[in-house]
Amino acid sequence: MSAAGPGRRRGRPASAEKVAGEPDTRDRILSSARAEFAESGYDKASVRAIARGAGVDPALVHHYFGTKEQVFVAAVEGAFAPAMGIPDLLLSGGREQWGEQLVGYVLGIWENTVTRDPLLAIMRSAVNNETAAAIFRGLIGRNLLRRVAGGLGMPDAELRVELAVAQLVGTALLRYVIKVEPVASVPAEELVVRLAPVVQRHLTG
Amino acid sequence: MSAAGPGRRRGRPASAEKVAGEPDTRDRILSSARAEFAESGYDKASVRAIARGAGVDPALVHHYFGTKEQVFVAAVEGAFAPAMGIPDLLLSGGREQWGEQLVGYVLGIWENTVTRDPLLAIMRSAVNNETAAAIFRGLIGRNLLRRVAGGLGMPDAELRVELAVAQLVGTALLRYVIKVEPVASVPAEELVVRLAPVVQRHLTG
Repeated sequence: MSAAGPGRRRGRPASAEKVAGEPDTRDRILSSARAEFAESGYDKASVRAIARGAGVDPALVHHYFGTKEQVFVAAVEGAFAPAMGIPDLLLSGGREQWGEQLVGYVLGIWENTVTRDPLLAIMRSAVNNETAAAIFRGLIGRNLLRRVAGGLGMPDAELRVELAVAQLVGTALLRYVIKVEPVASVPAEELVVRLAPVVQRHLTG
Repeated sequence: MSAAGPGRRRGRPASAEKVAGEPDTRDRILSSARAEFAESGYDKASVRAIARGAGVDPALVHHYFGTKEQVFVAAVEGAFAPAMGIPDLLLSGGREQWGEQLVGYVLGIWENTVTRDPLLAIMRSAVNNETAAAIFRGLIGRNLLRRVAGGLGMPDAELRVELAVAQLVGTALLRYVIKVEPVASVPAEELVVRLAPVVQRHLTG
């Protein structure tokens, strides 16, 4: 878990140039962290493996980000960036289009492996680890729920948004994680057609 | 989690009487296995901990069930028993009631901690482990999807059932696992009212 000294063998030590603050070192660590959390989940992920994936010394990971939990927050916050566009997307258009827009946008994030991996990381980790679940709740609550629900402006708006999110999260779970057929192989466009009215109903029905 | 003998230390081998085939030994192992898989997920669960929880020797767990994977199948198949009543429940009534019946029944299983734990075990494990995911796919596919979809008798029936299941699985994930408010605290009856029409629409709309 913690920093290994310079004489360490396994996990190639970082070269001097890398330590000296290449502008992309931080990004490389974050990208390795996302891959590691996606692959292993929070509990099994290690700072050592994240450092190895980035080609740096574990001490540098701690230097930039602190504890494993803090690395996770940083990795996940960046990974959540695409989802953070949702409130703006919805609030800029008529609310009778929200169902279709939300479903299309979320499926777009999941269909792209670059943005899917971090979401898998969050889901795998939050299901198995209370620390990760708390981070997830915080990000979802602060950034997504509150703004979209505010835009709806109904007393039960947060519950409405959550039940819409539940449809999308459950579909993602069966399609991308558990891979149950036929939902795992149906074209994304067909899912948009099927899910948009249901999500619309949750939001404004 | 479950009963430990009075004088038991850590990991002590079971007493002779316990090994000699008490009728409930098998059940005690299964119940301990469910608790262990629910708590730790498939990867982190160990036959040793399952044995300890049941107050028996690990060799006895292997004797009854074989490998960890086989213990998991046995624990999960029993745990799935309540869900296996779903096809009969639905097929015995008018299909315009399926939404309400399915949502009420599934929430009933989740609201009861005795039946919730095994479902948590399956969900935590299937999200993080391909072996567990394959078992989940097999159980869902063989027992649930095919029969309910057969009852619907539409060409896209399996996809319809899966999207209904996705709504329920996603809601369970947010309510019981991640515990996002307000969906975590809303009365189950209110969820039935909100989800039944959506699930009905997936199935027959």
